[in-house]
Amino acid sequence: MILITNDDGAEANGIKTLTRLMTQIGNVVVVAPDGPRSGQSNALTVTHPVRFKKSNEREGLTEYICTGTPTDCVKLALNEIVERTPDLIVAGINHGSNAAINVIYSGTMGAVLEGCENGIPSIGFSIDNHSLQADFTLFEPYVLKITRKALEEGLPDGICLNVNAPVGEISGIRTARQCKGRWVKEFEKRTDPHGKAYYWLTGYFENHEPGNEETDEWALAHQFISIVPTAIDMTDYNFMETTRNWEF
Amino acid sequence: MILITNDDGAEANGIKTLTRLMTQIGNVVVVAPDGPRSGQSNALTVTHPVRFKKSNEREGLTEYICTGTPTDCVKLALNEIVERTPDLIVAGINHGSNAAINVIYSGTMGAVLEGCENGIPSIGFSIDNHSLQADFTLFEPYVLKITRKALEEGLPDGICLNVNAPVGEISGIRTARQCKGRWVKEFEKRTDPHGKAYYWLTGYFENHEPGNEETDEWALAHQFISIVPTAIDMTDYNFMETTRNWEF
Repeated sequence: MILITNDDGAEANGIKTLTRLMTQIGNVVVVAPDGPRSGQSNALTVTHPVRFKKSNEREGLTEYICTGTPTDCVKLALNEIVERTPDLIVAGINHGSNAAINVIYSGTMGAVLEGCENGIPSIGFSIDNHSLQADFTLFEPYVLKITRKALEEGLPDGICLNVNAPVGEISGIRTARQCKGRWVKEFEKRTDPHGKAYYWLTGYFENHEPGNEETDEWALAHQFISIVPTAIDMTDYNFMETTRNWEF
Repeated sequence: MILITNDDGAEANGIKTLTRLMTQIGNVVVVAPDGPRSGQSNALTVTHPVRFKKSNEREGLTEYICTGTPTDCVKLALNEIVERTPDLIVAGINHGSNAAINVIYSGTMGAVLEGCENGIPSIGFSIDNHSLQADFTLFEPYVLKITRKALEEGLPDGICLNVNAPVGEISGIRTARQCKGRWVKEFEKRTDPHGKAYYWLTGYFENHEPGNEETDEWALAHQFISIVPTAIDMTDYNFMETTRNWEF
């Protein structure tokens, strides 16, 4: 059984595409947010309760919508909805790239990290196009291939996959690492009718290592699908030696 | 200049304690959420705008409150509030441990990762006590020592510190790694007056490697302060070789 969620909400084309593809592989349970939850990272709903309800059921596919975040969706699915542990969790297809530092902001990758944390092979699929009308056609066979490969080979405990696709032609698949870079000029300041300022999050990603062929951003810019093996253990093991030798 | 934020909100004792301590080291700017934002991870506010306002100003200390998440607070501070890049970002003191997997859920550590992502030495301080009346007295000299050491020695680009303190006596400081384990029995199901189910997030942390002296959980359980060097690059470099050899 394959569990699916996303952060664009149950009505997004991306999750509908992913659901259609996954039903070719096995039984599917969808537990998706009831609206957009982009940029929700691994956020949990703690100040109020969450709810879910079944929205659709047919042979091989059961769908639920949930009032919470993508991470809540995975937690609710595992604790309250599915009867046995899923063989796989997939999230997406995200409308927008989750390459580079976006992995830490993404609700889709939050759900993937949550699946991974629970010992379940987990994959996030995203396309480098924020449009709600993004065309997934060329990505679809690769989503199936990567999913089947991960199911066949397995993923080690604590490691999930962050898969991103370019817009347009696809030259192939490249294993890559998370590109260094950061978002800049992040807010657009406006003034409300009462003369008070408010700020919309916006900005653009500044690549700090353009031209580096090892990175996920390079892969996307050169029409490759990037696969970044992503760890839930955030410890920097090299720097431990340094802090261990600090004298206080 | 030191920038401070947290996820328990501007009124929490933890951030008041941290602010008092940091003013002993340098000029301080506080940009804190206007209420509790626990479990907000690196969540961003994208569906509506954010606002901030100055709440207090005296020699060496300026305080703002912000309607957004802890990550929003750091982004707003760096983009719209402070005139030059802070020398250091500290977050906390969090009411509750951010050891082990809590690093990915924590709004406090979200803010620290955001500071780190922006190339600024960043440290999260937490105490293993969720009470709003948690006593920070014994932790305070260590917060100062660790902060001064990090300022003196510097932190490498892309690496921040996740510092957690036990409740009660402190035996010393240990560099540790993120403990393996997961949250279980995560929801409490209730029924509303209309007969419909709702779910409160709760549960407890199950340590998967109790007795392992390398972990942050072991340090806390043995009255040590844990320092986990934490990386914003989540790539698992070892597993890249495997996925690179996958044939599709």
